[in-house]
Amino acid sequence: MSSAKAPPVSPLAPTAMPELPPLPGVRIATAQAGIRYSGRTDVLYVALESGTRAAGVFTRSKCPSAPVDWCRDALADGSARALVVNSGNANAFTGRLGRDAVARTVEIAAQAAGCRTGEVYVASTGVIGEPLPAERFEGVLAECAARAEDGPAAWNAAARAIMTTDTFPKLATRTAEIAGVRVNINGIAKGAGMIAPDMATMLSFVFTDAALPQDVLQALLSAGTKTSFNCVTVDGDTSTSDTLMLFATAKAGHPAITDPADPRLAGFREALDGLLIELAQLVAKDGEGARKFVTVRVTGAESDASAHRIAMSIANSPLVKTAVAGEDANWGRVVMAVGKAGEPADRDRLAIWFGDVRVAVQGARDPDYSEAAASAVMCEPEIEIRVDLGLGDGNARVWTCDLTKAYVEINGDYRS
Amino acid sequence: MSSAKAPPVSPLAPTAMPELPPLPGVRIATAQAGIRYSGRTDVLYVALESGTRAAGVFTRSKCPSAPVDWCRDALADGSARALVVNSGNANAFTGRLGRDAVARTVEIAAQAAGCRTGEVYVASTGVIGEPLPAERFEGVLAECAARAEDGPAAWNAAARAIMTTDTFPKLATRTAEIAGVRVNINGIAKGAGMIAPDMATMLSFVFTDAALPQDVLQALLSAGTKTSFNCVTVDGDTSTSDTLMLFATAKAGHPAITDPADPRLAGFREALDGLLIELAQLVAKDGEGARKFVTVRVTGAESDASAHRIAMSIANSPLVKTAVAGEDANWGRVVMAVGKAGEPADRDRLAIWFGDVRVAVQGARDPDYSEAAASAVMCEPEIEIRVDLGLGDGNARVWTCDLTKAYVEINGDYRS
Repeated sequence: MSSAKAPPVSPLAPTAMPELPPLPGVRIATAQAGIRYSGRTDVLYVALESGTRAAGVFTRSKCPSAPVDWCRDALADGSARALVVNSGNANAFTGRLGRDAVARTVEIAAQAAGCRTGEVYVASTGVIGEPLPAERFEGVLAECAARAEDGPAAWNAAARAIMTTDTFPKLATRTAEIAGVRVNINGIAKGAGMIAPDMATMLSFVFTDAALPQDVLQALLSAGTKTSFNCVTVDGDTSTSDTLMLFATAKAGHPAITDPADPRLAGFREALDGLLIELAQLVAKDGEGARKFVTVRVTGAESDASAHRIAMSIANSPLVKTAVAGEDANWGRVVMAVGKAGEPADRDRLAIWFGDVRVAVQGARDPDYSEAAASAVMCEPEIEIRVDLGLGDGNARVWTCDLTKAYVEINGDYRS
Repeated sequence: MSSAKAPPVSPLAPTAMPELPPLPGVRIATAQAGIRYSGRTDVLYVALESGTRAAGVFTRSKCPSAPVDWCRDALADGSARALVVNSGNANAFTGRLGRDAVARTVEIAAQAAGCRTGEVYVASTGVIGEPLPAERFEGVLAECAARAEDGPAAWNAAARAIMTTDTFPKLATRTAEIAGVRVNINGIAKGAGMIAPDMATMLSFVFTDAALPQDVLQALLSAGTKTSFNCVTVDGDTSTSDTLMLFATAKAGHPAITDPADPRLAGFREALDGLLIELAQLVAKDGEGARKFVTVRVTGAESDASAHRIAMSIANSPLVKTAVAGEDANWGRVVMAVGKAGEPADRDRLAIWFGDVRVAVQGARDPDYSEAAASAVMCEPEIEIRVDLGLGDGNARVWTCDLTKAYVEINGDYRS
C-alpha cells in the first residue's frame, strides 16, 4: 500500500501551532508500525501513570468499530494505563478478525505497560473492512514504552501520528485552578479525512493532571461534548469509530472532589469546554476540501433542542454549503434548510443575517438589502450565518465548512 | 435578467421522449411571459373542463411558498378549471407581496377561464425571495385560453415550459381500465434544478379522464406518492415549493366509484403508481450534475419504515454518493450510512451487494470478494446498491444519483 499524496494544507489552518506543556503522569511515543502507510508514523502510544481515570464519548453508529466496542467495555472499570491509536486501518466492519485484532493489540500493550489488558484503550482510523495486522505492534509498543517522553515535541508528534488526510495536526491546551491548585489540560484530535479507498474518523484524546473520579470526568466530558463535538459537522456522515476520551492522571494534588456540580470545578469546566470547542472547530476547519469556516447561529427558536436541529439542518444542507463555496449570499437556501428541519418555524417571522448584514426580515428580503454588502461578507474565510425565528428563547451554535469541488475530488476521484 | 447557459443534457436522459395522447377534458398552452428568462417559454396554462376534480400532495417544509399555501386552501373545494405554472420565479419567501401575486394570478386566470378564482391552481419555480411580477400574466393567460389545444406537441411544450435547469423534459403516460372502460393518465414533472442565484423545486402534474371524486383521487395520490416521489432524493434538500397534483376530468364515462378501495380501481392504481414512479425516477436521472442513477434497496429490516430510513440514509450520504461518482465499490461507506441511520441494525448480520456482486456478508468482507467484479458494476450508468440487515421482513427501495463536481459547480460556482 502506498501513502496517499498529501493534499494542500487547509487555508483555514492556524498560523501557529500551540506548544503543549508537559502533563504530569503522561508520556508519549510514536512509531512506524507499517500498518498501511510508508514513510510516516502510524502508531501513537501514551503511557499513563498508575491512578489515571478515564471517561469517553463514542459514536452513536449502530455499526461501531471493534475498538469502540472495546473502549466502552473497558470504561466499566475506568482505570487507564495505556492508550494505543493507529492510523491507516479503522478495524471497522472486520467481524471476528476485528475483535481478535483488538485482543492482540491490548495484550501487546499491557505487556509493554505492565498493566492489565482492561487498562488499555485503543482507537483505529483509516480503511474500513480490512483486517488490522495487529502483529505489527509486536516489539513496537514495548519499544515505545521504553522511550516515551513528555513535552511539546512529543505532543506534536502524537497529533501527527493519528492524522489520515488531515492537512494539519490539531492540538489545544488550557490551564485552570481547582481549589487553588493549578491543573493542565492537553488535547489532540484528528478530523474527517479520507484515505483511498476508505473512510475516516473523528478521534480526540484529552489529558489532564487533575485528580477526579471517573463519574465526575464522564459528567464533565459528556456535558462538554454537547457544545463542542456535537456542534460540528463536515458532511453529516457519522463515522463508525468516533471516539473522544478524557484521561486524568491525578498528579495535580488538589483536594478530593466527588461531585461534578462542585463549584470548585467551575474554572476547570470552563477550560475543558473551551479546549473541546477549539479542537472541534479545528476539525471543521480541516473538513475535506474546506475553504470556508462557517458558524451557524440560531436564535429565537422554541427550545435549544429545536434551535440545534435547525442549525444542523442549515449546516448539513448541500445547497447552503455550495452557496458558501461560491461566495453567494443565497439566503433562499437558508430558508429552505429552516423549512426542511421540521421544527416549529413561522415563515413570516424569519430574519436572516450573513455576518452583520441582515438580508431578510419578516419573511421577505430586507428592504435595505445590499447585495454588495452581503457579498463582501461571503468573501471572508470565516462566515457567520444567523437565523432568528422570532418564536422563543431557544439558541444554538454549530460549526461547519463549505462544500467544494475538492470534497468531491477527495472522496470520489481517487481511483487509479 | 439573462437566461441561464444551458447545461449539457444528462447522460441518463431517456433516448426517446414518450408521445402523450390527447386527454379528454384537458387543453394546453404555453407562452413567454418574460418573468425572468428570455427566449423561452416560462408559463404553462392548462384548461380543465367543467367537472374536473383535483387532489394534491405538497412540500412538508415549514416555510412553504405562497402558491403552495394557495393550492392547499383551494383543495378544500376541489373543483378545478385551470392550472397556471410559471418558471423563473418561485414566489417563495416573498411575504405579503407573494400572497398578492398569487391573488393577482388567479384573478387573471379565472377571467381567462371563465371560472371562480378558487378553481384555479398555481405553482411557481425558480428564484426565491424575488417578488413575482404577476401583472405580466395580463393578456397572456387570456390568449393562452383562446388557443389551448391537446396532443403530443402540446404535452411536450408543457413539460418544457416548467423546466428550470432540468436538462430534459419529463413526461409519462399510461392507460388502464375502470369497470371495463379505458382511461388515460398523462403526467409531466420538473426536477431539482437551480437557477442562479437561487433554488428550485420539484413540480409534477398528472391528468386523467377518469371520473373519480376528490377523496378517491387524494387517497390514490397520497398512496402513490409514498412509493414514488417520497422515494427519490437528489441531495436531501426539501424545496419550499414541492407540488404534485392529480386532475381528473371525468370524461371517460365509467360507472361511478366512491371508495378508493374499490377493486375496480386495481388497474388504475397500478397504472398511476407506475406513472408516478417513472416521473420520480426521471427527476433523479436529471439531478444536478448526475452521471449515475442509483437504486438503493434495503431488505431484512425490522419494518418497512425502518428500511426506508436506512435506504434514505444511504441515498443521502455524501460519502456514498461521491464513491458512486468515483466508480468506487466502497462498501465501507454503505456500512457507515447504515450505522448512522439510527435504526435497528446488527453489524455482524449485514450483507451488501453492488449489482449482483456480494461484497460483504456477516459483518465482514465477503470471502469471495472480487474487486474487479465490483468495479465493473460501478462503471455502469445505472447501479443497484442492496443491503440486507438479516433482522426481519422490512423492505424499501429508493432512487438517487451520484454527487459529482458538476453538482458543486452548478450550485456554487455560478457567480459572475
